[in-house]
Amino acid sequence: MYKVKVYVTLRESVLDPQGNAVKSSLHSLGFEEVQDVRIGKYMELLIEKSDRNIDEIVKEMCEKLLANPVIEDYRYELEEVVTK
Amino acid sequence: MYKVKVYVTLRESVLDPQGNAVKSSLHSLGFEEVQDVRIGKYMELLIEKSDRNIDEIVKEMCEKLLANPVIEDYRYELEEVVTK
Repeated sequence: MYKVKVYVTLRESVLDPQGNAVKSSLHSLGFEEVQDVRIGKYMELLIEKSDRNIDEIVKEMCEKLLANPVIEDYRYELEEVVTK
Repeated sequence: MYKVKVYVTLRESVLDPQGNAVKSSLHSLGFEEVQDVRIGKYMELLIEKSDRNIDEIVKEMCEKLLANPVIEDYRYELEEVVTK
């Protein structure tokens, strides 16, 4: 079993209106120090071992569903979990 | 200047309907190996140095706005950025 942590972020060149809204809210709350906010997604998946290579599976899942490769970048971390 | 990476996740005991929907979609796409999906948020903030302690600022921001402490946990990583 693998535990996979996937991070999906908007590409640098893409505007982030949600991040800007959060920045404005933080300013209104008195956190004037905040210069920039970018919002992404974080996903944790549990994947069973199979014949296929785990990196291949994760990349395919990211490109097909979890991220939009046109406007988003993704990276992931793999961790092997010992099942009892 | 600090670069702060904030990870917000649903607490273990809280149901994650969005994660379940993604899991079903992954199964429909043929990724039967996927056992569980939990979805969270990932945020990158740029924060200017000020008189206040940076850990204090980040914790306060998370508890007031970025996370809902009733159903979510958060963790963060700090990185000092040298401005040119």
